[in-house]
Amino acid sequence: MPKRVTGPEIETLIQLLSKVPGLGPRSARRAALHLIKKKDHLLKPLAHAAADAAEKVSECSICGNVDTANPCTICQDPKRDHGVIVVVEDVSDLWALERAEAVNALYHVLGGTLSPLDGIGPEELNIDALIDRVSQGAESRQTPLELIIAVNATVEGQTTAHYITDRLDGLSVRVTRLAHGVPVGGELDYLDEGTLAAAIKSRSDF
Amino acid sequence: MPKRVTGPEIETLIQLLSKVPGLGPRSARRAALHLIKKKDHLLKPLAHAAADAAEKVSECSICGNVDTANPCTICQDPKRDHGVIVVVEDVSDLWALERAEAVNALYHVLGGTLSPLDGIGPEELNIDALIDRVSQGAESRQTPLELIIAVNATVEGQTTAHYITDRLDGLSVRVTRLAHGVPVGGELDYLDEGTLAAAIKSRSDF
Repeated sequence: MPKRVTGPEIETLIQLLSKVPGLGPRSARRAALHLIKKKDHLLKPLAHAAADAAEKVSECSICGNVDTANPCTICQDPKRDHGVIVVVEDVSDLWALERAEAVNALYHVLGGTLSPLDGIGPEELNIDALIDRVSQGAESRQTPLELIIAVNATVEGQTTAHYITDRLDGLSVRVTRLAHGVPVGGELDYLDEGTLAAAIKSRSDF
Repeated sequence: MPKRVTGPEIETLIQLLSKVPGLGPRSARRAALHLIKKKDHLLKPLAHAAADAAEKVSECSICGNVDTANPCTICQDPKRDHGVIVVVEDVSDLWALERAEAVNALYHVLGGTLSPLDGIGPEELNIDALIDRVSQGAESRQTPLELIIAVNATVEGQTTAHYITDRLDGLSVRVTRLAHGVPVGGELDYLDEGTLAAAIKSRSDF
């Protein structure tokens, strides 16, 4: 949009909103206009919330989750099973599992997957901290620790899972991974052969 | 998402982002995470821009555009033709016309369309100010003023256009409206009968 249409403050707002995932240049403009129209109910609170989050948020020094507390809310929660650690690629995966209330355990966020072509080796990921965490946990506990490797079912995810499993060799820990199968509500006709084969292989009694 | 996953500041940010047009509850979460990861390059600047815009933005007292200047940048621009006023429903329409660089004139934002069923009468819209603006302009000028009615081609838009035209009766002003026709790049097969009929009727020599 030519600069002459509106004030520089609004242009800056549009330009920053267009960098938010899910918004493009055009929808950023629509969003900015909506925010401005709801100045007191949306724009001001958003400005305040963004400043507040920016000031207080940090990465959990134990698991890598983002939170305004450190250690994070999850690591500090006494009602969770501290003997189970779910290993995920990204904070968004952690949030997805929490949303599903799939497991009441702790997490460890890797921050990505191994990808030699992109120059991402074990040092770039949060893997050393995981191994330390498991060794310390394994020593101090009566019952063995369980590590649920919940990385994406992609080649990179699986490579990372294998690498972690190798590194854990010799430690007293049970390593598990997510089941493959038909998504709930999914139609067989639309699924790939790998998923169907896995679903047949892991079939259970009715 | 259950409250226990992350800090209240982040939850508030997600909740406000989910009210931004174009973002839903799920994409707001993804957006918040992205903003947090780019704290210094995106979240802090966005907080600042939003606060800045909220503090400085206002509605132009002449045309109804939103801007940080009043009268707005457009009304103050001496390089525009002050003898032509484009009447639009919403600020987003004004921005769309400016983006297209369709016209180098002034604007008047109605703030909606007449809609008796929704309780929106002439008093709810910025119409009286338009009539005043036109009468004053018509008196003080040598050449007659032109009013381009650029409302949407909907029933409500056209009703509003007719109402405005009636109110202007007796004033020395030329009232025009946008042409109907085939959108540039449009395929005839996908167009409705009304548009096709209008395009044939308003055909021009090749």
